[in-house]
Amino acid sequence: MACKSILVVDDDFQIREIFSQMLEILGHQYQYAADGLEAYHVLKNKEFDLVLCDIRMPEMDGLELIKEIEKINPDVPFIMVTGFSDEYTYDLVMKSGARDFIMKPFTIEELENKLNRIFKELCVSEENKSLLEKQIQLNKRLSALLTIAGELSSELDFERLFPLIVSRVTVAMDAERTSLYIIDGESGEIWTKVAQQVEEIRVPLGSGISGRVAESGKTINVTDAWELDYFDRKFDVKNNFRTRSVLCMPITNRSGESIAVIQVINRIDGGHFDDDDENLLKALSGQIAVALENSFLMEELQSSFEGFIRTLSAAVDARHRFTAGHSQRVTEYSRIIAEELGLDAGQLETIKYAALLHDIGKIGIRDAVLMKNGPFTPEEREEMNKHPAKTLSILKKFHFPKRLEQVPLVATYHHEKIDGSGYFEGLAGSEIPFGSRILAVADVFDALTSRRDYPKYTKDAILGHNPMPLAKAVTIMKEGAGSHFDQEVINAFLSCLPKILTLYRGAHFPLEYVDEMIASLQAG
Amino acid sequence: MACKSILVVDDDFQIREIFSQMLEILGHQYQYAADGLEAYHVLKNKEFDLVLCDIRMPEMDGLELIKEIEKINPDVPFIMVTGFSDEYTYDLVMKSGARDFIMKPFTIEELENKLNRIFKELCVSEENKSLLEKQIQLNKRLSALLTIAGELSSELDFERLFPLIVSRVTVAMDAERTSLYIIDGESGEIWTKVAQQVEEIRVPLGSGISGRVAESGKTINVTDAWELDYFDRKFDVKNNFRTRSVLCMPITNRSGESIAVIQVINRIDGGHFDDDDENLLKALSGQIAVALENSFLMEELQSSFEGFIRTLSAAVDARHRFTAGHSQRVTEYSRIIAEELGLDAGQLETIKYAALLHDIGKIGIRDAVLMKNGPFTPEEREEMNKHPAKTLSILKKFHFPKRLEQVPLVATYHHEKIDGSGYFEGLAGSEIPFGSRILAVADVFDALTSRRDYPKYTKDAILGHNPMPLAKAVTIMKEGAGSHFDQEVINAFLSCLPKILTLYRGAHFPLEYVDEMIASLQAG
Repeated sequence: MACKSILVVDDDFQIREIFSQMLEILGHQYQYAADGLEAYHVLKNKEFDLVLCDIRMPEMDGLELIKEIEKINPDVPFIMVTGFSDEYTYDLVMKSGARDFIMKPFTIEELENKLNRIFKELCVSEENKSLLEKQIQLNKRLSALLTIAGELSSELDFERLFPLIVSRVTVAMDAERTSLYIIDGESGEIWTKVAQQVEEIRVPLGSGISGRVAESGKTINVTDAWELDYFDRKFDVKNNFRTRSVLCMPITNRSGESIAVIQVINRIDGGHFDDDDENLLKALSGQIAVALENSFLMEELQSSFEGFIRTLSAAVDARHRFTAGHSQRVTEYSRIIAEELGLDAGQLETIKYAALLHDIGKIGIRDAVLMKNGPFTPEEREEMNKHPAKTLSILKKFHFPKRLEQVPLVATYHHEKIDGSGYFEGLAGSEIPFGSRILAVADVFDALTSRRDYPKYTKDAILGHNPMPLAKAVTIMKEGAGSHFDQEVINAFLSCLPKILTLYRGAHFPLEYVDEMIASLQAG
Repeated sequence: MACKSILVVDDDFQIREIFSQMLEILGHQYQYAADGLEAYHVLKNKEFDLVLCDIRMPEMDGLELIKEIEKINPDVPFIMVTGFSDEYTYDLVMKSGARDFIMKPFTIEELENKLNRIFKELCVSEENKSLLEKQIQLNKRLSALLTIAGELSSELDFERLFPLIVSRVTVAMDAERTSLYIIDGESGEIWTKVAQQVEEIRVPLGSGISGRVAESGKTINVTDAWELDYFDRKFDVKNNFRTRSVLCMPITNRSGESIAVIQVINRIDGGHFDDDDENLLKALSGQIAVALENSFLMEELQSSFEGFIRTLSAAVDARHRFTAGHSQRVTEYSRIIAEELGLDAGQLETIKYAALLHDIGKIGIRDAVLMKNGPFTPEEREEMNKHPAKTLSILKKFHFPKRLEQVPLVATYHHEKIDGSGYFEGLAGSEIPFGSRILAVADVFDALTSRRDYPKYTKDAILGHNPMPLAKAVTIMKEGAGSHFDQEVINAFLSCLPKILTLYRGAHFPLEYVDEMIASLQAG
């Protein structure tokens, strides 16, 4: 039995002496109190493993003492010491809350047995308690992990996933800050988008803590980063931050490849990250790996989908030297107008794809018509005007994802006019999807400001092959409001025209036109 | 204190009488044994909450009895009954493993106190034990859940995810069988792909257990499905199965929409599914919901990506009336040849997209060349032969997902020849990607068997505008092996030719050609 601290409470000096001799032999530490009141004050200020307590004492007897101590420390066990002739019965003593009693006279074996029994009981109950607590802690962590796993895996958009990982890990790990670095094997770098409160960083593999972990695949766990000679303090200095404890771990995918590095900084309680923390971060890393890989896959697929559409749309435009870049420009104008109108991300995405694809039907128009150098015959005009219908029949076969299901119609109706005089269905006003009304403005504006194969006329004036002067084009757009175009869209178009012109200043729009027009717009 | 069962062991009839009176007053059940040996046999066959045991007895004394009982049931607590004059010391008694002792003579209060103290101690330790066990169970479930969550969320392919969910849920829920139904709101049905050992099933919303859960969004938990009047026994009868306990729960996405129904059948231990099971399945459902939604999203995106490519490829082919359907057919031929060659799923996917896109460069060839009715001039031939280069320049901009990164090259090299005499790079033998060598065979075979705009010649014989007779085309393919084509690919092509012909029998290939050719191939 390990050495315990025991308080002996007895008014009888001789009994105290006997106890002291026995406790010394048994290897325990002890202290005296001569009566209940003294013991009370001692126990208020100091922890003991056990109290050996006489019952009959002046000032405050043993049973009163137990009662008082119960209020301040109910866990300290008492063994009551009774005389055989005492009027205190066994029942009275045990009911008082004492763990046991010992009758005078007693042998050292008897005392040893009583002590051992109580200490063993306490030890078992202590063990049970700490086991239970450990299990409860473990449960809490697992529940938290499960919640985080669910949250992470339901976020497939990398742009939102990244900050979500950072914030969840920071809370789960009780850290001040978390950095997530993605490993870019091709450039031999790791990069982070937005660590909390710190700007974007690119670090070569092997450099600093995260760079080392990314390169070696081995965890680094330190109490004070400033003690590492390879730690670069300049970020701390720049951001008025002091990095102390750091736990930095590789995130590996199912093939065992390191794909990222997670770094938690400054354990909130000020200590270092321990084994439990490492285990938790390891479990988190597994979930992070899955979520990251899914978002990469989704991003790859989405960007190849978009790349495909952009390339095809450019290839279709490029069949005619003067329409090259047309769909791309219409897409940019539409985006700027839609943003000006305050449309949401979903609507912007629909308009983007509709703009890229609005002329895809021209794939089915013969060169002889599409590239004709001169005005169309009525038959050629009819064929040319079929391109929205062709766009629709192509786009209908695409099986767009649900969030993009409006794309085919928005793309198709870009030649409808607000007064119902457009083609190919002659829709009017609110029958025309709002997105199509934006496309119509962007499409016509780009046509007016592009070179053409044959001279156009306004009444009797020959306008020629060159792009129309910007002022003239803007006037035509304004005049079309309410008949050809939606008034609200034209208003937005006019508001954001400087932005549109600036985007292609010196490219599609000659320098002098742009600057002159912006000056005139600003003048009123 | 609740009634306990107590064994009184004493050879003294009077003492037994005293105990019996007291225990009756205290409300406990009791039984006698007159000595240690008798007690030993009683305790071997029956559980007691406590033993009140004399020490000094004939045959087997109390201390021997404790020792023997410890071997068969160490948990039963003993209170030893000693006389004041007994030679058995306190130490000896307590060291034997007894929980306490009582000295004759004793009062009923003394006995009550001893009993209460021990039962209370036992109760606390029992409570601790069961709490701990519960926590350990909970931990096991959470760990299992976390593992399953990770597995499910890393599987984005619906075809693999579906059986994965079914198998993991079956094991986690200790069930015999699991069914997963997807809710098809449009058709008003639920459907399942592959329940274990049961064929595909479609059920109207509201019908049967799963149909009801899908419609109402409410869990159904029954002990015997056959007692429900709406349970359809015909699947059981057909599959020689007996459905008993069923727990069926809706799976809802983050917007609270029911997207699926999970049904576990026949708890393995034969009982019904209890509250703990419901909670576990509910937690599993959350993870399943995320995994299903991700796979739906991925499937949507992938199918719209594929739809886009198929549509565009068809639109490009359709510019020329005689090439309509060409890329689609080349894709099918290539797939059949590649399967014949035993290529894996990844290679098949690459070849599929490469085949669909191999002529996409024709988008940039002028109508005058593409649709020329007659043999090409050298200049026109040169322009026409640029289409693989145009295909490459378009496909390079696509940012294909990593697993499809070979598509541009495989598509581009479909006019290379095995002897190095092809275009546009003059690659030879193994320099040509294997996929391109398959495409070359499929492409030429389709060209030979399609109508053309101007008559072709072999030496001096005019072959005309009509598709070449199949036998002639096959001869040309065979003759090209080793110079134009890869010998291995030609061998595979010849082996699977009946499959290719059957696929387009009566469509691209005239009926009589197909049947004649298949007969001749079968003849040798």
